[in-house]
Amino acid sequence: MNSFGRIFRVNVFGESHGESVGVNIDGIPAGIPLEQEDFLPDLERRKGGARGTTPRKEEDLPFLKSGVFNNRTTGAPVTILFENNNTRSADYAKLREFPRPGHADFVAAKKFGGFEDYRGGGHFSGRLTLNLVAAGVIAKKILGDNIQVNAVIKEVGGYADAEEGLEEAIKAKDSVGGIVECTVDGLPIGLGEPFFDSVESALAHAAFAIPAIKGIEFGAGFAAAKMKGLEHNDPIVDASGKTATNHAGGVVGGITNGNRLVFRVAVKPTSSTPKEQQTLNIASGQVETFSVKGRHDLCIALRVPVVLEAVTAMVLADFMLLEMRVPRVFAQ
Amino acid sequence: MNSFGRIFRVNVFGESHGESVGVNIDGIPAGIPLEQEDFLPDLERRKGGARGTTPRKEEDLPFLKSGVFNNRTTGAPVTILFENNNTRSADYAKLREFPRPGHADFVAAKKFGGFEDYRGGGHFSGRLTLNLVAAGVIAKKILGDNIQVNAVIKEVGGYADAEEGLEEAIKAKDSVGGIVECTVDGLPIGLGEPFFDSVESALAHAAFAIPAIKGIEFGAGFAAAKMKGLEHNDPIVDASGKTATNHAGGVVGGITNGNRLVFRVAVKPTSSTPKEQQTLNIASGQVETFSVKGRHDLCIALRVPVVLEAVTAMVLADFMLLEMRVPRVFAQ
Amino acid sequence: MNSFGRIFRVNVFGESHGESVGVNIDGIPAGIPLEQEDFLPDLERRKGGARGTTPRKEEDLPFLKSGVFNNRTTGAPVTILFENNNTRSADYAKLREFPRPGHADFVAAKKFGGFEDYRGGGHFSGRLTLNLVAAGVIAKKILGDNIQVNAVIKEVGGYADAEEGLEEAIKAKDSVGGIVECTVDGLPIGLGEPFFDSVESALAHAAFAIPAIKGIEFGAGFAAAKMKGLEHNDPIVDASGKTATNHAGGVVGGITNGNRLVFRVAVKPTSSTPKEQQTLNIASGQVETFSVKGRHDLCIALRVPVVLEAVTAMVLADFMLLEMRVPRVFAQ
Amino acid sequence: MNSFGRIFRVNVFGESHGESVGVNIDGIPAGIPLEQEDFLPDLERRKGGARGTTPRKEEDLPFLKSGVFNNRTTGAPVTILFENNNTRSADYAKLREFPRPGHADFVAAKKFGGFEDYRGGGHFSGRLTLNLVAAGVIAKKILGDNIQVNAVIKEVGGYADAEEGLEEAIKAKDSVGGIVECTVDGLPIGLGEPFFDSVESALAHAAFAIPAIKGIEFGAGFAAAKMKGLEHNDPIVDASGKTATNHAGGVVGGITNGNRLVFRVAVKPTSSTPKEQQTLNIASGQVETFSVKGRHDLCIALRVPVVLEAVTAMVLADFMLLEMRVPRVFAQ
Repeated sequence: MNSFGRIFRVNVFGESHGESVGVNIDGIPAGIPLEQEDFLPDLERRKGGARGTTPRKEEDLPFLKSGVFNNRTTGAPVTILFENNNTRSADYAKLREFPRPGHADFVAAKKFGGFEDYRGGGHFSGRLTLNLVAAGVIAKKILGDNIQVNAVIKEVGGYADAEEGLEEAIKAKDSVGGIVECTVDGLPIGLGEPFFDSVESALAHAAFAIPAIKGIEFGAGFAAAKMKGLEHNDPIVDASGKTATNHAGGVVGGITNGNRLVFRVAVKPTSSTPKEQQTLNIASGQVETFSVKGRHDLCIALRVPVVLEAVTAMVLADFMLLEMRVPRVFAQ
Repeated sequence: MNSFGRIFRVNVFGESHGESVGVNIDGIPAGIPLEQEDFLPDLERRKGGARGTTPRKEEDLPFLKSGVFNNRTTGAPVTILFENNNTRSADYAKLREFPRPGHADFVAAKKFGGFEDYRGGGHFSGRLTLNLVAAGVIAKKILGDNIQVNAVIKEVGGYADAEEGLEEAIKAKDSVGGIVECTVDGLPIGLGEPFFDSVESALAHAAFAIPAIKGIEFGAGFAAAKMKGLEHNDPIVDASGKTATNHAGGVVGGITNGNRLVFRVAVKPTSSTPKEQQTLNIASGQVETFSVKGRHDLCIALRVPVVLEAVTAMVLADFMLLEMRVPRVFAQ
Repeated sequence: MNSFGRIFRVNVFGESHGESVGVNIDGIPAGIPLEQEDFLPDLERRKGGARGTTPRKEEDLPFLKSGVFNNRTTGAPVTILFENNNTRSADYAKLREFPRPGHADFVAAKKFGGFEDYRGGGHFSGRLTLNLVAAGVIAKKILGDNIQVNAVIKEVGGYADAEEGLEEAIKAKDSVGGIVECTVDGLPIGLGEPFFDSVESALAHAAFAIPAIKGIEFGAGFAAAKMKGLEHNDPIVDASGKTATNHAGGVVGGITNGNRLVFRVAVKPTSSTPKEQQTLNIASGQVETFSVKGRHDLCIALRVPVVLEAVTAMVLADFMLLEMRVPRVFAQ
Repeated sequence: MNSFGRIFRVNVFGESHGESVGVNIDGIPAGIPLEQEDFLPDLERRKGGARGTTPRKEEDLPFLKSGVFNNRTTGAPVTILFENNNTRSADYAKLREFPRPGHADFVAAKKFGGFEDYRGGGHFSGRLTLNLVAAGVIAKKILGDNIQVNAVIKEVGGYADAEEGLEEAIKAKDSVGGIVECTVDGLPIGLGEPFFDSVESALAHAAFAIPAIKGIEFGAGFAAAKMKGLEHNDPIVDASGKTATNHAGGVVGGITNGNRLVFRVAVKPTSSTPKEQQTLNIASGQVETFSVKGRHDLCIALRVPVVLEAVTAMVLADFMLLEMRVPRVFAQ
């Protein structure tokens, strides 16, 4: 489904080269100050243009179509629309012959019988992360200033120094992957729902909706698999639940424990590498040489942090509204 | 919530040392042969008793309380009950003073105001994975013989040879973590739902419901973050979608591509290590020496494979019921 | 689906002549006092035995299988089981030939391919209302003493005096329908969710789950269709929202307005009339004379009030938990 | 929530005098021919302008913002936007003082703390039924030509002849209620889901989302309450399930039985009567004389048929997608 969340319910729609992409969000408390400008900083962070990111530039202006009155949320669903102005679909015409490796082209054609909008990845495009960022802006407002969500690049192409990794990729004329870490400070104890809606379950569910994410780990994560119990356990040191170490990443039994939430995601290299590839030509039935045209990020991981923050805020806002009893009316 | 799944809907309940644990499953097609014996092989695989697993032995007999008539499913919800016979709650009486590091004791008491059933982890206990295994048995029947789900131990305590890792742990008198890999063969192309219900999202959601899982990765996973695009991309080599490599782990754009599904989970070391720990005594307010009593697995990862298979089958059965039979394509 | 509710989530299961019927309820706040005895008064009200009700007597003892510890709810799902002891399935053997008019026999066989448990109506039996009554007992506790749900018989067989209507039916040796009215006092203003989860939508959804209900109306209901606007409108007379009249039945715009909630349901005559009927014999393919054996209520409406109260309380408890911020921990 | 449906999932948004109203629909199969013109006939039917309906005229052009490519659905969510061009909000400025009797003004202000968009009823306005009609057009396409949904006026102001009832209202200078009947031919046997998602439950749920509906009855409905069993029962007369009478309205045990589906809804008189009313002035705290300005229907029931058809088609399309294609029976 194209929706996510139990109380703070996010519905995304749109296609990369269609009329628009957009998001409809239900369950937002009334009274939250909200206007177009609030979205711009995070949308700017997401935008292409820096080294290693796509030269495609959209204005990415969010139009508030419903749910806001006198610059405040009304309690009714908020719909945000982004127009697609700067599309060059001709770039994609040839792609029907070569389903791009690593992209959804092949599976989408099978699943939707060829009726899918294939231009630029259509509904599978990274452009839909605009919607996540927009939803994240509202979610962050619900979390308030005391809960701080922060995602940063930890690695690009195997290098802890992202610049270095990117440099190397530019030199190699190939795309690269990366690792992004997200931390959240200020969370109350008790978010997360047994049995199936652990904080890890909900965050992983949302994170894997971001294109190109192929792994997620909390706290020590995969390193925990090599540790001993005494080493991994986080001793509780005071009545507030503070722990001496944080191998659990702030989640125990699927529930926040009041310590910093920490998790990392693995981002695969951009599938649209500038390199030539050997892959199937559907028309000829032969494996042939193919190279992707169009405008693409060399390292998609560079654009992930603000998107990861957004889905994290979405998940946590939902838990806060569900569990922690934030009031329906939320005047500031 | 304690439910999962959209069509094949699993509701778990019960406590480690309460009357029973059990599972109620809605959305099962009518006519599937089902009797108590069908559950025994997978329940046996899950059961403790081997080296490194808990000496607690329950009969673990599944009682079919509804939804089965003349040894076939009826289309009505199936409820399966496991009685708790072999509980030694006295072991846990002291735990209220020492919220066990790595366990839900502390967060559960905060979340449920002290009303939670704390005995043996209560509703947070690994004993509830009985329910998952039972649901998995039915899910596997829905998948049929042509879809094979298979999970195996890949690493214990850092050793590829599980025996060796376990030996080392026994020697060190400490618990250890591990890595479990799950593969699925025979899946059709097209399972998974844009935008939020990618196969990765759904599997990760379900996997993190299993206690002690702290990471998940698909295909190349975290290694992909260090790869280049040309290296990571899986060229399509024939019209069936077969790829030359499988770094994607059988999922592209969140949708199965007809190749083997591959993913791995990181399992933390059992929190109930036999070692002494320094942690907070709630009663005294002091950090004190504490050691866990009760019966526990030295390496919980050893019991994970059959549970991971079960949740994988649950997710895939749900997708199969949802997607492969609904006329997604509706050309007129 | 066999579940209902967004926060207070009720899952029913079981068959009339199977092992058991039961209910699993998620989303119950922790700390609510709960023991077997709490269920007995409402279960007693539902029980057959009075004139016009079925002579079948079950002990109808509710067994609490999970979610309760030290006689209080724990915040984990509560499962309640009713054993079926007093079944006489032989009575129903012949029914396969004659799908009983007014019953689900025919449609169930078509829908579930003949695998349904047909004995005594199986999963479609009125016996499953035991589950609703049990869930209602817990829901009423969540509503608290200040919210009073009360359902009463308004009409039997067209007579305002139920005794008279019943007398007439006994004389005519036929079953009869009736009308049940439910009122709720003490509700806060603001329950109900635009656009699809109006109070009327939710209550109607739940009410039509009760077998034999064929109509529902709020406030003036169908009579409103014959009224003029000035006559129907309820003028607001003070700042608390009190209205001079209550043609709206306490719901305006789908939302409770602080006045008494009032609605009525139409209950059809028991389909299992003692009269002979002319209907299809599936085996012979002919319309033949048939008469229902087994034990049945002459006027099913007589048993509806406590069930209607129960589903009403379920719906309102769900709204209260969702909207009015009843705390997770609910100590008394 | 502002969403409805399990597979065919409809999300409505917008306000009467805001920027727009619109609808986002997930779960539509790919390949359905769809363009703006397809919506116009049903939108025209809904539009005001006839005697007894509001003189407000919007172009009501549906703009397809996503999910359609080359005039066919793509399998991605379809978003349809209606711009609000012809608003006269000044008419509503005074309404804050007088919460209109019968309208949501008072409860909305309480529920959303005064942050609601109160202009013209805001999110509670009948204008949102545009969204339902649009969703209904797509739903009808899913049902196909063999399933015919048809709703008609049965009564206006107590008169079977709608013209007569309307005449009488115009003369009385007051608004009137009415009754609308909906029938569906061509349904398969087996739609509807035990226990809580009976066809009656789902249709009632959806119907009560339409503003001004205060009652619903299936088949004989409330008249059934006065009938005897032999009279009410519909004898089955052939192997296809055809019944001699249709007091059940085509639904038995909550499941369609292959006969014509029949139900009626009661529509209250338009709350915005032209008559003067005595009601609370919030500002003064006194009951005062008040009369509604703005443009309103004299008999809202006249506009209900196409809306009722729409929600009926939504519900049935959802059941068709959910039930008729899933292999409910799974014999091995």
